Amino acid sequence: MPSLLTRYVPLLTWGREYDRLTLTNDLIAAVIVTIMLIPQSLAYALLAGLPPEAGLYASIVPILLYAVFGTSRALAVGPVAVVSLMTAASLSEIAAQGSMGYAVAALSLAALSGAILLAMGLLRLGFLANFLSHPVIAGFITASGVLIATSQIKHLLGIHAEGHTLPELLLSLLEHLPQLNWPTALIGGGATAFLFWVRRGLNPALRRLGVGTRQAGFLTKAGPVAAVVVTTLAVWGLGLAQSGVKIVGAVPQALPPLTLPDLSQDLLAQLLLPAVLISVIGFVESISVAQTLAAKRRQRIDPDQELIGLGTANLGAAFTGGFPVTGGFSRSVVNFDAGAETPAAGAFTAIGLAIAAVALTPLIYFLPKATLAATIITAVLGLVDFSILRKSWDYSKADFAAVLATIALTLLMGVEAGVSAGVVLSIGLHLYKSSRPHIAEVGRVPGTEHFRNILRHEVETYPSLLTLRVDESLFFANARFLEDCIHRRVADDPQIDHVVLHCAAINDIDLSALDSLEEIMHRLSEMGVTLHLSEVKGPVMDRLRRGALLDHLTGKVFLSQHDAVEALRPAGGETRLSAPSLRD
Amino acid sequence: MPSLLTRYVPLLTWGREYDRLTLTNDLIAAVIVTIMLIPQSLAYALLAGLPPEAGLYASIVPILLYAVFGTSRALAVGPVAVVSLMTAASLSEIAAQGSMGYAVAALSLAALSGAILLAMGLLRLGFLANFLSHPVIAGFITASGVLIATSQIKHLLGIHAEGHTLPELLLSLLEHLPQLNWPTALIGGGATAFLFWVRRGLNPALRRLGVGTRQAGFLTKAGPVAAVVVTTLAVWGLGLAQSGVKIVGAVPQALPPLTLPDLSQDLLAQLLLPAVLISVIGFVESISVAQTLAAKRRQRIDPDQELIGLGTANLGAAFTGGFPVTGGFSRSVVNFDAGAETPAAGAFTAIGLAIAAVALTPLIYFLPKATLAATIITAVLGLVDFSILRKSWDYSKADFAAVLATIALTLLMGVEAGVSAGVVLSIGLHLYKSSRPHIAEVGRVPGTEHFRNILRHEVETYPSLLTLRVDESLFFANARFLEDCIHRRVADDPQIDHVVLHCAAINDIDLSALDSLEEIMHRLSEMGVTLHLSEVKGPVMDRLRRGALLDHLTGKVFLSQHDAVEALRPAGGETRLSAPSLRD
Repeated sequence: MPSLLTRYVPLLTWGREYDRLTLTNDLIAAVIVTIMLIPQSLAYALLAGLPPEAGLYASIVPILLYAVFGTSRALAVGPVAVVSLMTAASLSEIAAQGSMGYAVAALSLAALSGAILLAMGLLRLGFLANFLSHPVIAGFITASGVLIATSQIKHLLGIHAEGHTLPELLLSLLEHLPQLNWPTALIGGGATAFLFWVRRGLNPALRRLGVGTRQAGFLTKAGPVAAVVVTTLAVWGLGLAQSGVKIVGAVPQALPPLTLPDLSQDLLAQLLLPAVLISVIGFVESISVAQTLAAKRRQRIDPDQELIGLGTANLGAAFTGGFPVTGGFSRSVVNFDAGAETPAAGAFTAIGLAIAAVALTPLIYFLPKATLAATIITAVLGLVDFSILRKSWDYSKADFAAVLATIALTLLMGVEAGVSAGVVLSIGLHLYKSSRPHIAEVGRVPGTEHFRNILRHEVETYPSLLTLRVDESLFFANARFLEDCIHRRVADDPQIDHVVLHCAAINDIDLSALDSLEEIMHRLSEMGVTLHLSEVKGPVMDRLRRGALLDHLTGKVFLSQHDAVEALRPAGGETRLSAPSLRD
Repeated sequence: MPSLLTRYVPLLTWGREYDRLTLTNDLIAAVIVTIMLIPQSLAYALLAGLPPEAGLYASIVPILLYAVFGTSRALAVGPVAVVSLMTAASLSEIAAQGSMGYAVAALSLAALSGAILLAMGLLRLGFLANFLSHPVIAGFITASGVLIATSQIKHLLGIHAEGHTLPELLLSLLEHLPQLNWPTALIGGGATAFLFWVRRGLNPALRRLGVGTRQAGFLTKAGPVAAVVVTTLAVWGLGLAQSGVKIVGAVPQALPPLTLPDLSQDLLAQLLLPAVLISVIGFVESISVAQTLAAKRRQRIDPDQELIGLGTANLGAAFTGGFPVTGGFSRSVVNFDAGAETPAAGAFTAIGLAIAAVALTPLIYFLPKATLAATIITAVLGLVDFSILRKSWDYSKADFAAVLATIALTLLMGVEAGVSAGVVLSIGLHLYKSSRPHIAEVGRVPGTEHFRNILRHEVETYPSLLTLRVDESLFFANARFLEDCIHRRVADDPQIDHVVLHCAAINDIDLSALDSLEEIMHRLSEMGVTLHLSEVKGPVMDRLRRGALLDHLTGKVFLSQHDAVEALRPAGGETRLSAPSLRD
């Protein structure tokens, strides 16, 4: 029982070794991450179409719950760009942005996503996330980055614009461009330019001034805070809110409220698909960061326990006024670089954000939304990387097709269509490939006991003896392919009397494949051809003995392919030398 | 161009070799199959909830079209039990049995199913059917047989009953049992007993009387016709229709009419899922029969062309008053045994049935529905075989779980739920297995250059050198599993300095797996561990050269595992001998 508890509550493991030094390191990291998270949380709430305080709330209780149930020591959980965009895209089909129904649906989405993640974790289904191929994820993140940046341009320019696809957004921006608000555009343009300079130019500049690497790094991360402070002061001092600059306005001064998501069946049914996609994408993003950071300290991440950690975090968000969250890339790296040693650093960050929610919210009354948009744009353009197209084109056309479809569908039809297409294509390509295993006709390398592919090597074969090597385990998806393959080969060549299946590469044979082998044997026997097996592995032989095939196998099971050829080749029969057409 | 035409129209191939002897054989087979098909077609129309003539119509034009486009020489296409049941189940959600809307929806279902099959054929997606595992199909057919037989009991007893699941059917039968019609029950019970005796007892009895095997077989197949004739005469002679015996009644005396399926978007959307399931199940049943028969004469079946043949057959059914069809098991075997040599036998059967539709329909006016129900029950109980449960339990628990779920869901929730669950479970189990390939830690068999699994053999290893052999191609579904596996092993053992991936069994590495290898290399390098590869196959090496991994690989690529160990083992370092816990 204690071992079960420590498995599901990693806190009990690291909590026991906690000391003063760890505390100091965690506290320093927490202060730095808190400063970075305040503008980021507000900005991602804006991206998700929610009031700014939702961003803060989504970063408090979820972090605490992840600290108890998560396995990563440095992961920082909260709203992230892609998940916020997906949240906005799915909620816009349910209610109008700014309405009460929209905010409640965000809670429902978080609750559903949390329940899905938790269930996947308890059922140990973490492996399902593996079915999103890397190129598809890369394509999706890049296309999402473009969509997110485009969706924020309206805030930079102080105009209205709507849409969830690139053409919709661009057309809507063009249409509303005449309503451009100059003060907003100046603030937005200035903040964006400043933040880009901070990203690209500040760090080298500081280093030239002799500032240490780590300090320069942290100052760079604080850039958004500077932009927030300066533009807020500008709007307040110059009274720009009267000139039409949109500001954050009144934010409640409070700890996260206790909220109840709407769990009506209709709403949950509508949110199910988006919740599944958000869960999977969020999990994939989070686990990648967690594993990268854990590797640097030779620590271990348990993917199934991570699902439980993220699941409880999202449930926490659902009941405390938040929206779907996951482990974020940039904040986790900052947390790690700042020296966070345990999830306690996350807990301290949560306390810092709670203080901000209670004490600092009046200070952001005059914060212009354009500054938040600038923060988002500079953050997500770092994710945009079209080089995956070139890379996959060079490496494999199948991967390229999946990437291209994902990018195109995400931009033209929205995030849900894009990521669904990516998943379906990934799995479809996988099923296609695994249903046609590599099957080689083999012959003997003259003068040896080695058997090689006749297409790649000059080897001896006998016209009456066909040996096929299957380079994969046999199971239902490829069993019929093997049937067809053998049938085609034998039906076309009446000289064949014996077929030997060379089984050295077969690690398993399931019941469907066993049926197929029976079927193959019967069909061959109808044609007067005998079926033999050679080099069957021990565990596979054990399993075959439990079925009926061996009892009435028309041929024999040979220990080695060499034995098979010696026994089956016609006495004094002619050998043929293959003419290899492919070479290694 | 001519080769493309002969590929898509197999008629052009066998038509050229057609001679008088073939014609005679085909004609004899056609007569026998026609006699068998008349009661069967009427019965399956009843099962599908359609008027009896629909069964005849569904057997005429579809057979002709299959004769042109199909690749099997002996397959007989028409209504079959399982597909008829699935048709009834899906149409009952759309319109009431007997209504005009129901019959039109049956045409739409056939059109949609035909279009799906045709599209799959043209896109060469026949391999998709492989993802229905054999045990799942066996379970589904058995459960469907039980459902079909139960659904026909009401006709045997002359009562009403409704439902698409076993509990619904049984409850409804019990509820209506007091309305039992005795004359119907006598006819139904008598016909069922007679047909069971024909199946089990007639053949041996005839053989004892000195009748030849083939003749006895054909007389047995004609049993249903005898039941039809006797019971029709009884109802007519005794005026039983007035005593409440339900009869077939007036059937139009006509060739198949030209009909237009309703192709409105709403209806097609409702029918899409059932049509997909019917297409896949129908295709799987048909291709299994076709391949079994083709093998007996060393002929070849092209699965993708079969899809085209079945697709056009279903489109034909849709436009000539039919319903979904496929290649049937019993009629094809009869056709084959009767000596059919080419699809022309099918065309002659179609002509026979057309004559029956025009000339014989008045004769079946008094045919009792109970006789048709008896025909169906005796036919489908031959399909019921629960031994698949025992067989799969003995062989593999994963297969057993899939079979049990398919049978239980089909009986308790209906055919669509059952077969969907079967497909999802088959693919789910496949994805699960393929996402965790067999990865063995290997060591050297002392005194040799062979490397074997440390769990199965007593082999030499070095504490600073970890060699892992992956027994599968690397691709996105298992790439992360490999990452986790290596990470776990290395994080737990600080003695390790070198990791060698033994790649002899790897046939392909996709872009996701390449990324994973990079990731593994970086993580190992963070821990101060070097990554090497050994025994990389030629084509895989070619592909790796197109990526960036080899340019900055921390370790080396060794031609053989032996070279790797010689180069990496600590000079004079101690070896360990493994204590194998599993033995071949």
